[in-house]
Amino acid sequence: MSLQIESLNILIHELTRLPGIGEKTAQRLAYFILREGFQYNQALRDALSTVLEKVKECSQCYSYTDDGELCRICRSPDRDPKIICVVEEPFDIGKIEASGSYRGLYHVLQGTISPLEGVLPEHLKLQELVRRVDQVLEQHPDQALELIVALDADLEGDTTSLYLTKIMGTRPVKKTRLAHGVPFGTDIDYIDRRTLGRALENRVEL
Amino acid sequence: MSLQIESLNILIHELTRLPGIGEKTAQRLAYFILREGFQYNQALRDALSTVLEKVKECSQCYSYTDDGELCRICRSPDRDPKIICVVEEPFDIGKIEASGSYRGLYHVLQGTISPLEGVLPEHLKLQELVRRVDQVLEQHPDQALELIVALDADLEGDTTSLYLTKIMGTRPVKKTRLAHGVPFGTDIDYIDRRTLGRALENRVEL
Repeated sequence: MSLQIESLNILIHELTRLPGIGEKTAQRLAYFILREGFQYNQALRDALSTVLEKVKECSQCYSYTDDGELCRICRSPDRDPKIICVVEEPFDIGKIEASGSYRGLYHVLQGTISPLEGVLPEHLKLQELVRRVDQVLEQHPDQALELIVALDADLEGDTTSLYLTKIMGTRPVKKTRLAHGVPFGTDIDYIDRRTLGRALENRVEL
Repeated sequence: MSLQIESLNILIHELTRLPGIGEKTAQRLAYFILREGFQYNQALRDALSTVLEKVKECSQCYSYTDDGELCRICRSPDRDPKIICVVEEPFDIGKIEASGSYRGLYHVLQGTISPLEGVLPEHLKLQELVRRVDQVLEQHPDQALELIVALDADLEGDTTSLYLTKIMGTRPVKKTRLAHGVPFGTDIDYIDRRTLGRALENRVEL
């Protein structure tokens, strides 16, 4: 279905590398970009180069920041530095922030352990987390430190969670994970039996 | 769900302008672009600027071309200049070419008449088509000229098709449109009754 216009084909090819964008969608996007002409093309390129130039890793939590060495959350005086929520990627932070029920800090592992895909513990920000925990323990020797593991509830998430517990060793750290249960607004009919089992085990008094 | 990183938000905003890309998908794409880093970002920007710089309108059919004033199809000696297939946008040409059953030329209207959306006949390449038809008639005075209208089978397509017939006036042009009928490989159960009615009317002897 291609018009055999080489420069257009190159754009289509680059767009198919984006997640969830197949050949047909990429064609539709490329034709749209062509039709929109200079202004949109320019705006998109500017946005891409600004992101490349300005967005860096936060040196403490490994999320993104574009206005300082530490990200907004890490440098906020309103957040509790003694609670660290461990997530897979920066995107997850946005989700947890949107819930409005968390006032601690984050730590982005930049993946989860998955030997099949070649992701080993040394590829993740795990040693960085251990060092960070040691620092917090040093700065607040008399206070409790909590690590909330907010990884996906799948094999990779569970493996990473176990590994994390292991490398924390005997450090005086409270390790928790997100509660499993019935999603808000969901019909019980549609919940799988494992989730429902967990929701029953972890039932809460009214 | 945003991390409040301004440059990232700008990229997300620009991506939501693409057709079929909502806020969530745009976020996913933006995070992917960030994670991929320099090489992909650069490749995408290069592809965008090359398309902007090189792809132009074909001066005859108003499709795209990146290697000459006329597009590949218009300048091919193997195509029959006395058959012109009228399409809405260049994307449609790719589809018709893929069918492998067409050896004529094309004419891209760059839209269809839609007063509700502010698209009037003068916004389309209709006068250009009339001029082109006159030229072909002049160059091949003794031969039949055929216009195949390959517009969407909807209100806008039908309106444009009618308008086109009208402006062709008494010019000796054979005007045809794509056949309606049962799509190949489709179960008759799933065909709407209007299509089925047309398929019956236009039945073909075995």
